[in-house]
Amino acid sequence: MTFSLDRSIELLERTPNVFKIMLLGLSADWTATNEGGDTWSPYDVLGHLIHGERTDWIPRAEVILAENADKTFTPFDRFAQFEESMGKSLAQLLDEFAAVRSQNLDRLRAFNLTDQDLDKKGVHPALGEVTLSQLLATWVVHDLNHIAQISRVMAYQYKNEVGPWIEYLRILNS
Amino acid sequence: MTFSLDRSIELLERTPNVFKIMLLGLSADWTATNEGGDTWSPYDVLGHLIHGERTDWIPRAEVILAENADKTFTPFDRFAQFEESMGKSLAQLLDEFAAVRSQNLDRLRAFNLTDQDLDKKGVHPALGEVTLSQLLATWVVHDLNHIAQISRVMAYQYKNEVGPWIEYLRILNS
Repeated sequence: MTFSLDRSIELLERTPNVFKIMLLGLSADWTATNEGGDTWSPYDVLGHLIHGERTDWIPRAEVILAENADKTFTPFDRFAQFEESMGKSLAQLLDEFAAVRSQNLDRLRAFNLTDQDLDKKGVHPALGEVTLSQLLATWVVHDLNHIAQISRVMAYQYKNEVGPWIEYLRILNS
Repeated sequence: MTFSLDRSIELLERTPNVFKIMLLGLSADWTATNEGGDTWSPYDVLGHLIHGERTDWIPRAEVILAENADKTFTPFDRFAQFEESMGKSLAQLLDEFAAVRSQNLDRLRAFNLTDQDLDKKGVHPALGEVTLSQLLATWVVHDLNHIAQISRVMAYQYKNEVGPWIEYLRILNS
């Protein structure tokens, strides 16, 4: 499939509810546990998604669309959520994610993007030149990446409980 | 985490709604496409889950719990969904999955399983001896495996659209 703004929004607007259905009211045995070491729990992933809404996708789209000559994005902080989520419940984070995502999709629609806009470029601090459509496609895939991740992190909690079936379960071997 | 019936049901009862929120009303560009060759689309995965509800998890639990001497499970047909789903819409499959899962969780609760029951054994046609708790843990992880899979299959549709970000997106490299 080639990039489509409508097809992208279809997925982006569902993600907060996917997280809500998967996590709201679930035991901390599932939501606050990780894959060992400094890997992330579903709770941590949610904080990361909220931070992305505030500092990554739409702010970077604005850099690309602005008249300024400097098109370099501010580097993304992959660890900001550990401070920002502090003291907040999972339910609060789920509501916060839904609110900031909804605002950002309003901003995205308000851009009234043309095909020419989608080809405009920004500069990623590590990856170099990228287009607006690549940024928006990445936003979509990034959501799916983290839905797959929280599934994998929860599956990991039962890694020792499935016995010989482990060899059939790709999610425990990836 | 060691196996817990309550913690397992917490996840099992959410899965039909997770699929509904992720897929209902979404374009066929996302739901009917796969990763190439004879890989599965989200629509195919849903048919597979329904077939599992009918022939795998609870029927196998019943083999383990029954008084019969023969504890060998009937082999699972991984391709039955291609015939069984034929002519059905995605919305129909989502409703069907919700209905059969709900019935199966009623049956699971009605077993009133004791810790002794959870240690009872059946014989998997390929894997050999397995316990009831391993079967039930596998049911949970199998759900999560397929949530991760449909996320990966949908992400794949944008594989060529994310540009240089591909190297940061584990879901496109797994």
